[in-house]
Amino acid sequence: MTRPVIIDCDPGHDDAMALLLALGDPRLDLLGVTTVAGNQTLEKTTRNAQKILALAGASDVPLAAGCERPLVGELTVAGDIHGESGLDGPDLDVPVAGTAGVHAVELMRRLIEGSPEPVTLIALGPLTNVALLLRLHPEAAARVRRIVFMGGSTDRGNTTPYGEFNIVTDPEAADIVLRSGLPITMVGLNVTHRALATTQIIEEFRALGTRLGTTCAELMTFFADAYRRNFGFEHPPVHDPVAVAYVLDPSVVRTVAAPVVVELGGTYTRGATVADLHHRSARPDNADVAVGLDVDAFWPMLIGAVRALGIPRTLVTSEDR
Amino acid sequence: MTRPVIIDCDPGHDDAMALLLALGDPRLDLLGVTTVAGNQTLEKTTRNAQKILALAGASDVPLAAGCERPLVGELTVAGDIHGESGLDGPDLDVPVAGTAGVHAVELMRRLIEGSPEPVTLIALGPLTNVALLLRLHPEAAARVRRIVFMGGSTDRGNTTPYGEFNIVTDPEAADIVLRSGLPITMVGLNVTHRALATTQIIEEFRALGTRLGTTCAELMTFFADAYRRNFGFEHPPVHDPVAVAYVLDPSVVRTVAAPVVVELGGTYTRGATVADLHHRSARPDNADVAVGLDVDAFWPMLIGAVRALGIPRTLVTSEDR
Amino acid sequence: MTRPVIIDCDPGHDDAMALLLALGDPRLDLLGVTTVAGNQTLEKTTRNAQKILALAGASDVPLAAGCERPLVGELTVAGDIHGESGLDGPDLDVPVAGTAGVHAVELMRRLIEGSPEPVTLIALGPLTNVALLLRLHPEAAARVRRIVFMGGSTDRGNTTPYGEFNIVTDPEAADIVLRSGLPITMVGLNVTHRALATTQIIEEFRALGTRLGTTCAELMTFFADAYRRNFGFEHPPVHDPVAVAYVLDPSVVRTVAAPVVVELGGTYTRGATVADLHHRSARPDNADVAVGLDVDAFWPMLIGAVRALGIPRTLVTSEDR
Amino acid sequence: MTRPVIIDCDPGHDDAMALLLALGDPRLDLLGVTTVAGNQTLEKTTRNAQKILALAGASDVPLAAGCERPLVGELTVAGDIHGESGLDGPDLDVPVAGTAGVHAVELMRRLIEGSPEPVTLIALGPLTNVALLLRLHPEAAARVRRIVFMGGSTDRGNTTPYGEFNIVTDPEAADIVLRSGLPITMVGLNVTHRALATTQIIEEFRALGTRLGTTCAELMTFFADAYRRNFGFEHPPVHDPVAVAYVLDPSVVRTVAAPVVVELGGTYTRGATVADLHHRSARPDNADVAVGLDVDAFWPMLIGAVRALGIPRTLVTSEDR
Repeated sequence: MTRPVIIDCDPGHDDAMALLLALGDPRLDLLGVTTVAGNQTLEKTTRNAQKILALAGASDVPLAAGCERPLVGELTVAGDIHGESGLDGPDLDVPVAGTAGVHAVELMRRLIEGSPEPVTLIALGPLTNVALLLRLHPEAAARVRRIVFMGGSTDRGNTTPYGEFNIVTDPEAADIVLRSGLPITMVGLNVTHRALATTQIIEEFRALGTRLGTTCAELMTFFADAYRRNFGFEHPPVHDPVAVAYVLDPSVVRTVAAPVVVELGGTYTRGATVADLHHRSARPDNADVAVGLDVDAFWPMLIGAVRALGIPRTLVTSEDR
Repeated sequence: MTRPVIIDCDPGHDDAMALLLALGDPRLDLLGVTTVAGNQTLEKTTRNAQKILALAGASDVPLAAGCERPLVGELTVAGDIHGESGLDGPDLDVPVAGTAGVHAVELMRRLIEGSPEPVTLIALGPLTNVALLLRLHPEAAARVRRIVFMGGSTDRGNTTPYGEFNIVTDPEAADIVLRSGLPITMVGLNVTHRALATTQIIEEFRALGTRLGTTCAELMTFFADAYRRNFGFEHPPVHDPVAVAYVLDPSVVRTVAAPVVVELGGTYTRGATVADLHHRSARPDNADVAVGLDVDAFWPMLIGAVRALGIPRTLVTSEDR
Repeated sequence: MTRPVIIDCDPGHDDAMALLLALGDPRLDLLGVTTVAGNQTLEKTTRNAQKILALAGASDVPLAAGCERPLVGELTVAGDIHGESGLDGPDLDVPVAGTAGVHAVELMRRLIEGSPEPVTLIALGPLTNVALLLRLHPEAAARVRRIVFMGGSTDRGNTTPYGEFNIVTDPEAADIVLRSGLPITMVGLNVTHRALATTQIIEEFRALGTRLGTTCAELMTFFADAYRRNFGFEHPPVHDPVAVAYVLDPSVVRTVAAPVVVELGGTYTRGATVADLHHRSARPDNADVAVGLDVDAFWPMLIGAVRALGIPRTLVTSEDR
Repeated sequence: MTRPVIIDCDPGHDDAMALLLALGDPRLDLLGVTTVAGNQTLEKTTRNAQKILALAGASDVPLAAGCERPLVGELTVAGDIHGESGLDGPDLDVPVAGTAGVHAVELMRRLIEGSPEPVTLIALGPLTNVALLLRLHPEAAARVRRIVFMGGSTDRGNTTPYGEFNIVTDPEAADIVLRSGLPITMVGLNVTHRALATTQIIEEFRALGTRLGTTCAELMTFFADAYRRNFGFEHPPVHDPVAVAYVLDPSVVRTVAAPVVVELGGTYTRGATVADLHHRSARPDNADVAVGLDVDAFWPMLIGAVRALGIPRTLVTSEDR
């Protein structure tokens, strides 16, 4: 039986890979995709999501654009990591489908209320849309099976010393999610930094011989450059697919229950996810925190999904734009 | 010509008076009423709004319930000021109309987009609904003529030494509103504390000889007790109608342009509205800040509106609930 | 019987007037003067204190320089209010005595431990020295009769909307003092803004016909310009002598016991003194907070003290510096 | 040639080991020891320092007690880690010498000003005393060669998720030190957690056959239990000697220059040391941050020092206390 999921994302190279994993693995039923400003502006992340769906032959998956900025504070996009388009690297010229014409929060509500089975929400960008769903439609949110988000860290961050990009971009949204009382899984940098796309991995994607395989290789090659330049990484971490892999097969990611709060104040630490792994505070557990990744199981899942998507029929001749 | 307004409120004794002012004065066209949790829970403030509309013979005004809690932080209602029902004091047993069946934010959006003229938004409770409108439908919000809110203070507060109830309840929402770039007027405690319902004023309402006049007198009598008990006030301030009076006739409230920010951090000052009246900071003006009230013009407006509403025809026999 | 006091100050025009009040009124025994950076740099405030003592014929009063900067955060002097020298306006060319050659904190300790009677500490600048005394010599501090400080406010501030200069300059020091458990009196802007040096008051000083009287008139004339320019005041408030007047005769200043805390966090409110006058929090009373001033008693005390100091014998011919 | 050092500490098991390293290695000249409240109350840490000096036959080293509490905030001792005495485990019944009879800050000042060569300050507890030296005697502090402190972390903490005990205990003091402009080395948990006293290491101490060797073994055995119980560590980290080892031989500890600030605000992160190792902020480098430890060089230094101290002559018969 397949598990119904909604993916809220801001593609972004690793978001793209995550979408492909969700689309290519038969164990998931991707009910819809919603977009949020983050890695790039809303207009760009929406366009990128449309392109990925089209490339994967999944333009029939409903897609809605959401918030163009965080709840509080200004948007700072990650152009240094994802490039001007938010998905620099490969040629993504492909005819795309339109959007659902409603706000992301409204699409989420409809899909959640319309699904016979509780839906798993996978959030791969700033949690703005998800937080608004919680505040605007608490009764719909209460039907969500689990929120699995890529974001935060149990140790160091990537945007500030202790802050990860998605959470630093909208700390209040993350706070709303983490205090929601819903089942939550946090897949943070401490684990996603183990999902490194080595040269050999990139070659395996290219060796698939499909346009999607090549696109993945090109995405990760661009990402490798960005991580080398900005952080001195030898190989780039591919964050977002780890969250999808966890939903596909929880055994791939080891988690521990812990209290996790978001620092909303702080001069230097705003947006840090403060995970009390040793239970030294009196705070109750509110999240399952990813602490380990089965790398050997992870990559075959991702490569297999991209292989399964093959060369989509929709990729023919007509022009995008 | 009448001015189209939407009132977002959490009745609340002074909210009730504000609704009556908006309904009874022919210069305003009350397009709709939305409710928010604040003085009491959403369920109670919504019910109270329904009752006031019914008492005023205005059950045809669209009404929608909004957020049941602030964006960030927990709700703490003001039962010590407004009583268990949120509108303790008078007998308000009256048959009420239903709600619009959509969320407050959605009703606001429709009314704003449906109005030929730009709408003035009058917010009398925590700014949760208004903030969500700004984040969810920025294009609709951009069509708002002005947001006039009762809340904050240029000097001391009423909930904490520097924090006023509406802003302390949802500081992030207030921050979103004050940073929106829209024309904003802040009507704070520094001015509403001059709108004191003296014994003579209360008698004038009672002397109207209508059920509404008596209800107003009873509301203010209850309020007087609460303010005497909690703050040692001789006469109670009637906050919310001042914001409506300002929209009716700006000359009733003296304002100065100033930079106003909301303290979101702070151990003891969270929710303080920090108004730089002397322009000692480099922050730009973003609000017109009420600094004076023409008391002699204010009360006749309010009493006149209640008189104009007379004894509404809807008050007959049937049962509420 | 006289009351032994130490004055810690950062002259500063109103500090100068406060020193003269303490020196000229026979009810106080000024054991020593210590200086701190604040209105101007430590070098300048120390030099100014030396000059005032010399002008008052009191160069035998021990004087020691203290901290050249706040505990945490940087020093920002108030050159816009007190001028380049910290005491701009009058000609203060006068031979001065040297300092005690020890740190202000050490002088305080010696004077406190050497006094048969408990000493009252009057602090007129940032509380850096006083806080260091509390941390470095808690046993000496425990012998202090009371700390009376000019600083803070129960409503608006003068440096930020809710922050007064002395406290904003060193919030941590103020926090240390207010949490010390010692008897504390806070004389804030809410009261000192009533001690306005009107034109008539200034003329009364000038009419004394002494160099000191003229100096006072010139100090207040300069101060009047600064307050007109910076805050639009018609007449300048003479803050610091109010704290001395309170020690001389507590009936001049009405106080109420209240919990007072200093906001150390906060983006816009750091350094605000948060006085819970209505006891709405659970915090215990820790200070007597000045809330009223008997203006009619205040000015005669100050004018009388300056008259009493006459034309000091030390003012002869020799050169300063 | 020997290097003159002062050690400020709060013994504490690992402080004790650090003192022994400084005393036993001929490359250091321990000018004095000062104590501060931290792991236990000032009275206890002072007594413990006296005992360690006595056990090492070094009762002639000047010792002065300092601050009994942090600058701001309350003291919370680490009784769960160091036991009731602050040095639970071994029998430390030994006659001790008295203290210098001056405050720690005054002893530091005298030793620094009296030393022909610039002194290195090694701080192993909360930085309260060191911060007061900086504020009280900036001219003496300016003569310090370098401040090397054990405290903070570049990743996770031990007292809060991101806060290490010494810094969390007195964040303002740490801020003062890190902003001092002096050469600073931070030796944090990220490195000291590699100095693990394995069972074999403990046996090597015991095998020395001296009272000191046995005492060290017993100290580390107690510490091992505390770390197993509180943090699930297999072997206990011996933090403080790493800072001394770095002064003895900088090649033992790998450092990188980086901007390090202390979070003073923050609801959950107060006291975190925020080290921008990737230079993503605009903040200037202000500290050399320990990032690696040569474990194989470290332990022989420590064991060698304890061996060198042998069985001190002072350990004879008389009673302590």
